[in-house]
Amino acid sequence: MKKWISPALLIITFLLSALGHFLGWNFTLQFILSAISVIFVAGFLGKATESVAHYAGQRLGGFLNATFGNAAELIIAILLVQQGLFDMVKASITGSIIGNLLLVLGLSLFAGGLKFKVQKYNVSLAGLNGSLMVLGIIALFIPAVFLNTHSITESDTKFLSLVVAGILIFAYLAWLLFSMVTHKNYLADVSHKDEELPHEHGPQWSKGRSILYLVIATVMVALVSEWLVGVLEPVSEEYGLSELFVGAFVVAIVGNAAEHSAAIMLAMKNKIGAAVEIAVGSSLQIALFVAPVLVFVSYFSGNTMDIVFTTIELVAIGVAVFIAKSITQDGETNWYEGLMLLAVYVILGVSFYLV
Amino acid sequence: MKKWISPALLIITFLLSALGHFLGWNFTLQFILSAISVIFVAGFLGKATESVAHYAGQRLGGFLNATFGNAAELIIAILLVQQGLFDMVKASITGSIIGNLLLVLGLSLFAGGLKFKVQKYNVSLAGLNGSLMVLGIIALFIPAVFLNTHSITESDTKFLSLVVAGILIFAYLAWLLFSMVTHKNYLADVSHKDEELPHEHGPQWSKGRSILYLVIATVMVALVSEWLVGVLEPVSEEYGLSELFVGAFVVAIVGNAAEHSAAIMLAMKNKIGAAVEIAVGSSLQIALFVAPVLVFVSYFSGNTMDIVFTTIELVAIGVAVFIAKSITQDGETNWYEGLMLLAVYVILGVSFYLV
Amino acid sequence: MKKWISPALLIITFLLSALGHFLGWNFTLQFILSAISVIFVAGFLGKATESVAHYAGQRLGGFLNATFGNAAELIIAILLVQQGLFDMVKASITGSIIGNLLLVLGLSLFAGGLKFKVQKYNVSLAGLNGSLMVLGIIALFIPAVFLNTHSITESDTKFLSLVVAGILIFAYLAWLLFSMVTHKNYLADVSHKDEELPHEHGPQWSKGRSILYLVIATVMVALVSEWLVGVLEPVSEEYGLSELFVGAFVVAIVGNAAEHSAAIMLAMKNKIGAAVEIAVGSSLQIALFVAPVLVFVSYFSGNTMDIVFTTIELVAIGVAVFIAKSITQDGETNWYEGLMLLAVYVILGVSFYLV
Repeated sequence: MKKWISPALLIITFLLSALGHFLGWNFTLQFILSAISVIFVAGFLGKATESVAHYAGQRLGGFLNATFGNAAELIIAILLVQQGLFDMVKASITGSIIGNLLLVLGLSLFAGGLKFKVQKYNVSLAGLNGSLMVLGIIALFIPAVFLNTHSITESDTKFLSLVVAGILIFAYLAWLLFSMVTHKNYLADVSHKDEELPHEHGPQWSKGRSILYLVIATVMVALVSEWLVGVLEPVSEEYGLSELFVGAFVVAIVGNAAEHSAAIMLAMKNKIGAAVEIAVGSSLQIALFVAPVLVFVSYFSGNTMDIVFTTIELVAIGVAVFIAKSITQDGETNWYEGLMLLAVYVILGVSFYLV
Repeated sequence: MKKWISPALLIITFLLSALGHFLGWNFTLQFILSAISVIFVAGFLGKATESVAHYAGQRLGGFLNATFGNAAELIIAILLVQQGLFDMVKASITGSIIGNLLLVLGLSLFAGGLKFKVQKYNVSLAGLNGSLMVLGIIALFIPAVFLNTHSITESDTKFLSLVVAGILIFAYLAWLLFSMVTHKNYLADVSHKDEELPHEHGPQWSKGRSILYLVIATVMVALVSEWLVGVLEPVSEEYGLSELFVGAFVVAIVGNAAEHSAAIMLAMKNKIGAAVEIAVGSSLQIALFVAPVLVFVSYFSGNTMDIVFTTIELVAIGVAVFIAKSITQDGETNWYEGLMLLAVYVILGVSFYLV
Repeated sequence: MKKWISPALLIITFLLSALGHFLGWNFTLQFILSAISVIFVAGFLGKATESVAHYAGQRLGGFLNATFGNAAELIIAILLVQQGLFDMVKASITGSIIGNLLLVLGLSLFAGGLKFKVQKYNVSLAGLNGSLMVLGIIALFIPAVFLNTHSITESDTKFLSLVVAGILIFAYLAWLLFSMVTHKNYLADVSHKDEELPHEHGPQWSKGRSILYLVIATVMVALVSEWLVGVLEPVSEEYGLSELFVGAFVVAIVGNAAEHSAAIMLAMKNKIGAAVEIAVGSSLQIALFVAPVLVFVSYFSGNTMDIVFTTIELVAIGVAVFIAKSITQDGETNWYEGLMLLAVYVILGVSFYLV
């Protein structure tokens, strides 16, 4: 592919998608245009992230990518919370967590595993990631159990939700302190040194330009995602899909397009540490930061959203955490492990589709 | 024991058991005769498997043993499916999974651990086996949760069962590709080289004779198992045992007699890798291959069996997977770990007996 | 702090607490006096344990501490069982397990982790501890599931409880045989040798005096604990706390004061192996030995207590086991892992407070 094609297609599809949105074209056409556009802006974001990751190190790069990727989701979710659409918010949080842990991680391990027999990354990080996942699922699980067994009242549940949300945000900030400051080297990429040497091709862009492109790409992804999400309801109605399925699968897949492309690209370059950081880090960020922030946003908006998910949402998140933890905890990955994650994703997808 | 005693006893008990079956002797007598016979044919199968394993390597040998062992169960289950006895089929699938993971594995680790302080096997294989177990339990768990929370209808459950069954069969075939082709060496036995040297006694039979004996022994096991299973109902009625207990414990123990003897024998010769492969591999084969195949068999017979197990069956499988995974994941075993598995098996056995 | 202050305060606060108890002072005053006293007697017990641990080795010392710490709890629980206060007993068992796994272990890892970047202990022991935790939770879980799904009757549940209790006591005795006799060295502390050398300060007391002090300290802890527990009901009524919260949190925290101080002190001296042994070992002792013994005590008292815990108690124990296992299984600890355990403890504490 010639060098100029990609930027051209990026801009053309973005403008077409924008035109479709602002001129109010046919919904299905808008959907198709923005879906095509999202592929290119996500690719652009993936490239920018990779370039920044080159300067910042795999883990910080992965963290940046996860954060920029989730920024779009956070903004969309805040809009939904302020409209009181709590079920839609929870469905998309569910979808985002399982989408990252099963689809993004699964595709990364699978694609990376086809090129490299075994890919390794820091086993201490793998263990801590696993424990953080467990913390996240426990925090979502406890209020639901206490409410469903009638152990506490509904109004107490809102108070408990705020407490749990506060603890999760505190735990997330402490995690940043731990992983970026006090134990940075402890969690460093195993193969860091080896990979530095055989630099097939250095980064395309300078440090400053990489950061600028990262910001621009994130904004573009956020815009296109929003246009796409905007037409999801009429389109899903037309094709007879349930709100839960759309929230948990369609929105989540589209909203995580950036993470998808970046993680897979990195995995195929044997930077599996960064790929895992994007996929797992992104889902942790949603469980430990985005979801709790939404609880507080709803509280300050005067209509507190509790943190109680439905049974099938909890089961979906629970099984995703359980298998992702089982697969990642040894710090070694291969194509079959990716396949197992994808198998669980398909099973969940079909189940939610049938609801 | 003199060399000729064992073959003589094998043939005599087999013939007596056959006579009892075809001449329609007293049920309790038939039960006793075939139960005694099964010990000898299982011992014969164990010896043949060990001999084949010598030529084929521990893991392939273990896989062959698991497959030959499950062939009998598959045939019996297909007969039950065609008679529409779905509850009995699910009870025996449950019993087979927990019997392999708790009883066979437990006895192997315990017996092997009494002779050897610590036994080691490939830790990557242990991790992948654990993840496959998790995949299996998730696949059985999801449809049950969606049906029990009324999230999907009963007819949709049958469709979902077919999808899940298809995914599991695909995952199992991919696992064979992975473990036998693309990552064969990665999963090889740790102590392979060391054990090759101090050959106390080489295999008794030639390669061709070993394979022939393996086939003959499997057929004998299948026949005796069937005769035994045939009298279980009248005998269990006479002694007041529930169908669930008989299906999940008596049938499973008898049906897995071959795996039992082979796995324990291998563990006591420090071939713990092959013993684990038989016990865990056999339960994985049942969850990922036998159970899904039965769903398709029922579909093509015109009366689709769903893949929804009862709560107590799921709990039994779930706890068996949970503790077996916890115990096997470090690739090291000892007698106490065997004891823990047996403790859980006894707890489950008493619980099912009381139902 | 001058050397004579601590013994003086120990004796003065103990005597004041005794006076308050026997002279029947105001309940709130009794509570405050015995709560202050418990800090000093627990500190004394911690010091004595550490001294004994020096002579006996980290693991045996940890075991002694866990046993002496639980002796007080066992005596109190037996008194409650004989009065038929089964719910209170189960609440305090629950609280003791989660208190040890989350609060004591959490504070130890956190405090130790602030002083030492990474603390390591025997990874095989970590794995076995994890599997024992799983065995414990399974044993509590199975009877509850079979009873709640109406699979077995209430009277059968009592029989099942006795069977499960017998199996657990057998498993616990076998564990002592395994860990103290057959596999003592296999589970030895990793850093044993290294720590022996740079003896900053040897033990303060001789071997005989250490053991004597350990016994005296344990008796003092038991007495003060009882006085404190004695006024808990009136005090908790006055301040409007539920019985479940008091049983599971207040009683458990006070009753485990000895383990708390000893474990944290050891962790801060980098003897993390002993600290984990106290925290995890103590909770295992309660699940596998104290709880089953109580079932038998109730049986011989003529009013059998079943082993069926409420759903929220099981969930609390389950999540505590799940995250503690996830965090400890790699044999490496740091401050953030301690923080995660404490986060789960706070979430559970607030939830139980709201009941």
